[in-house]
Amino acid sequence: MTSIKGIAASNGIAIAKAYRMEAPDLSFEKKEIESPEQEVERFQSALATSKNELEKIKDHALKTLGEEKAEIFSAHLLVLSDPELIQPIEDKIKTENVNAEAALNETANMFIDLFKNMDNEYMRERAADIQDVTKRVMAHLLNVTFPDPALIDEEVVIIAEDLTPSDTAQLNKQFVKGFTTDIGGRTSHSAIMARSLEIPAVVGTKEVTATINKDDMVIVDGISGEVIVHPTDEQIEEYKGKQAQYEEKKQEWAKLKDEPTVTADDKHVELVANIGTPDDVDGIINNGGEGVGLYRTEFLYMGKNQLPTEEEQFEAYKAVLEGVGSDKPVVVRTLDIGGDKELDYLDLPDEMNPFLGFRAIRLCLERDDIFRTQLRALLRASVYGNLKIMFPMIATLGEFRQAKAILLEEKEKLQNEGTEVSEAIEVGMMVEIPATAVIAKQFAKEVDFFSIGTNDLIQYTMAADRMNERVSYLYQPYNPAILNLINNVIEAAHAEGKWAGMCGEMAGDEIAIPILLGLGLDEFSMSATSILPARTQILSLSQEEMTSYKEEILSMDTAEDVVEFVKAKTGQK
Amino acid sequence: MTSIKGIAASNGIAIAKAYRMEAPDLSFEKKEIESPEQEVERFQSALATSKNELEKIKDHALKTLGEEKAEIFSAHLLVLSDPELIQPIEDKIKTENVNAEAALNETANMFIDLFKNMDNEYMRERAADIQDVTKRVMAHLLNVTFPDPALIDEEVVIIAEDLTPSDTAQLNKQFVKGFTTDIGGRTSHSAIMARSLEIPAVVGTKEVTATINKDDMVIVDGISGEVIVHPTDEQIEEYKGKQAQYEEKKQEWAKLKDEPTVTADDKHVELVANIGTPDDVDGIINNGGEGVGLYRTEFLYMGKNQLPTEEEQFEAYKAVLEGVGSDKPVVVRTLDIGGDKELDYLDLPDEMNPFLGFRAIRLCLERDDIFRTQLRALLRASVYGNLKIMFPMIATLGEFRQAKAILLEEKEKLQNEGTEVSEAIEVGMMVEIPATAVIAKQFAKEVDFFSIGTNDLIQYTMAADRMNERVSYLYQPYNPAILNLINNVIEAAHAEGKWAGMCGEMAGDEIAIPILLGLGLDEFSMSATSILPARTQILSLSQEEMTSYKEEILSMDTAEDVVEFVKAKTGQK
Repeated sequence: MTSIKGIAASNGIAIAKAYRMEAPDLSFEKKEIESPEQEVERFQSALATSKNELEKIKDHALKTLGEEKAEIFSAHLLVLSDPELIQPIEDKIKTENVNAEAALNETANMFIDLFKNMDNEYMRERAADIQDVTKRVMAHLLNVTFPDPALIDEEVVIIAEDLTPSDTAQLNKQFVKGFTTDIGGRTSHSAIMARSLEIPAVVGTKEVTATINKDDMVIVDGISGEVIVHPTDEQIEEYKGKQAQYEEKKQEWAKLKDEPTVTADDKHVELVANIGTPDDVDGIINNGGEGVGLYRTEFLYMGKNQLPTEEEQFEAYKAVLEGVGSDKPVVVRTLDIGGDKELDYLDLPDEMNPFLGFRAIRLCLERDDIFRTQLRALLRASVYGNLKIMFPMIATLGEFRQAKAILLEEKEKLQNEGTEVSEAIEVGMMVEIPATAVIAKQFAKEVDFFSIGTNDLIQYTMAADRMNERVSYLYQPYNPAILNLINNVIEAAHAEGKWAGMCGEMAGDEIAIPILLGLGLDEFSMSATSILPARTQILSLSQEEMTSYKEEILSMDTAEDVVEFVKAKTGQK
Repeated sequence: MTSIKGIAASNGIAIAKAYRMEAPDLSFEKKEIESPEQEVERFQSALATSKNELEKIKDHALKTLGEEKAEIFSAHLLVLSDPELIQPIEDKIKTENVNAEAALNETANMFIDLFKNMDNEYMRERAADIQDVTKRVMAHLLNVTFPDPALIDEEVVIIAEDLTPSDTAQLNKQFVKGFTTDIGGRTSHSAIMARSLEIPAVVGTKEVTATINKDDMVIVDGISGEVIVHPTDEQIEEYKGKQAQYEEKKQEWAKLKDEPTVTADDKHVELVANIGTPDDVDGIINNGGEGVGLYRTEFLYMGKNQLPTEEEQFEAYKAVLEGVGSDKPVVVRTLDIGGDKELDYLDLPDEMNPFLGFRAIRLCLERDDIFRTQLRALLRASVYGNLKIMFPMIATLGEFRQAKAILLEEKEKLQNEGTEVSEAIEVGMMVEIPATAVIAKQFAKEVDFFSIGTNDLIQYTMAADRMNERVSYLYQPYNPAILNLINNVIEAAHAEGKWAGMCGEMAGDEIAIPILLGLGLDEFSMSATSILPARTQILSLSQEEMTSYKEEILSMDTAEDVVEFVKAKTGQK
């Protein structure tokens, strides 16, 4: 039995055998072959198997991810049916008497090099497609396993260095019971997806791929952040017990689905959800969310070849507003692209420090054609619910004024065109850049609300890239500096009669929740699956008590001091 | 006449003809040649001319930059004498009957590719050397000019997209009267070097290379940030007048060389210099500096193949302490490597956002072997003057405590070995990460002093890479958020009876100086050449008056509001 400690990224407990998701060894030797005919057959058979798999994956993606996301697999299938790629490979086998591996590799590389160096985003994407499918065919030629999360058909725990968003999107909850990775943190994409899919996960273990072999029995404890390899029978029993307890807890939580969120001393706060697409609305309702605190609109722009039209956007916004219900708030964040999120078709310049670069509102104010289209779609959808709009990455009051002026211009234009627009739209901003938290007082006079984006606020305030393992120890939500900035924002909002919410990971964290209650936070926005546990916790807390600790907490020296204090006061372990 | 507006980067006025520093067009056609013997001769002649130039540049570098920096040119000369490179080129000309350009290019590229892909930093550097010298030889074969700032022998103004630190280091003040670039800002390396060399400069013009041709008459006004192309005779007269005025001003300033820095209402502040090497000490003394506010020790580690020894460092620190004079403070910043400053021989991993990455104290706490060597050298040197030590990029109190504990350990070790160490060393920290400015109160209890590093503090607080042109509008020293953080640091220091200084570019800025006086800053550290103008300005300001504006300034909405207010109150244009 080996125990590995990592970061608890998604609640729950998984017990199953290991499925290693890793790049297969595709090395081969170039060889002369005796029978070119047989070799061409062997190649065609690998091709057919690959197509077959891709069809299955595509069907699965269609069902679980929708048409748009499934298109990538159609593109891959097209590559495998393209005579301009396939014919030269077969010719090479026949004329040069080489093995299929060499013929495939050399021909594919020629196309990849050709396309990759073109100054054309579309062709560069074709190069990536060819690269992807070539690997699959090569794996079949070499008879090695090509990991396909979508094709898993028995209960497993996935072991990987990291999972890409597209890996995670392919996971089938029925068979994938949990996953654990070497790298990543609570705010990495794979962690956010795990919570959204409700798959237990432990990330950032540094060593699971080095320690765990295929088919090893593994327990992933997404509550404590522990991974146990080769558990004893007693341990399996123990964790089955914990699993049952967790299921029971979930049933307890479910009872609170339609209850309001009130503290023990009867203060109401709002528990809302972070979402990415209209499909996520069901999750909010099933988990008792009181609305949407952060609708990340980037997904509308990603995974396609061009900007979404005003109409496409209007339909998505309308669907969310109607789906959530007309009285419940839906806070939409305008486009936050750049940084770690790129759009190939915008062809943005490479930056040395993308997190400190040309992203979000900075890009939208320069490319105001993109911005105006989004704002028009939002304004048109506003009549279908309780819409609130917020701008991401605001650093100066000048930027907020400029963004709001553009919004008002588009509103006026629409009204002049005879289009109905809600008059009750609140216009706020994300507080995720230290400058805005420091002088929140000045901003509070002009915004309708603040939403504190702690994922970015923490990384800028600590000057530590949250994706960089070497400085991840500085990603400290409980650092007194962060808490002072949050306090400053909430106080500034309240002094002007405005509300302050939070839409970073911190809002759903059980150490942070008591502190944030004490600071007077009005709205907590989190992964839908965190809402019921958070409601349960809040019901048992007294806001007055937590507020009485405020000055003491804000004056503490270190994050460790804060955690120790909160644990002692709230009886958490 | 054309006028181009840029960023004033180094004071003074230059009037001279343009010298375009740009990559030459080295394109050529591969050709069959008739007489290989003649072609080899042509190649050998280009080789000889290149060697001749490199000898001159090396001599110049030896005189102006010292032995170590000149080594790079010795390396280049070695490449040109290496038969393993030269012989294959000549062979290729003879056996393949190709022109020298093609033979040079193909042979050099073969070596470059070979070395570049080796997993060995030394070989990768050899690849870069070959690339550099090949270009020079190619330029001579093609008879195009290869720009060599060190070889300029008539009065010119340099026009360039940007200047690398090594370009700037080669400038000869006797002939290079000024420079102007398309990119860069006041804190870029070329701007800092220009001030240190006292060469007038205007950077970030966006268009000088597109507008100015070789030998065009150009005026560079490093005071206003204007560049005038094809000036009229009247303009030349006008600017000669301004030049004379500036020279007069400099003579006025010089009279204040040995005067203390006191405000009109008799408050004393300290004006000290930022330096990089012991060679900079003369500049401090000539410019009336009252000590060193920032000794950047990185230069000891850069431009070589290995870490500096304890002895080398001891000699450098001792030279600075003795050179400055035993009563004057010398604040040494421990190693701040990483971010935009790399050390090839440390082989650090590439980072997605190096400014938010593994740098400075983060690296030193992990690689404490490097850190301890530096601290021992500093401690040993401490008996030769008034040494103060500060740690860069501190984010948490835990890091400061850890760094200080290591310092005390080394001190004890040295004392146990019988080595004398000063008992009066102050130990402080840079405040350049927002988190530390926010909770400066907590830090003030444990540090002896703060030095605010505004270059980084601004970029993190505004979440805008100061090297990134697209977001340079957010590099706002006068943003009220920045001023509030600075105020917080100064107040926290004074409440504990500690002092607060500033060593960013802002400390020498004439809009910032009145504000900083009003906030109570104790020490201003700047480029040596800014000290006398700053002293002149401070003599005319009343600290009491500036302090009376403090609350009003801190409550302002935008940087523009602040600038307008300060200009109105101090009569600046």
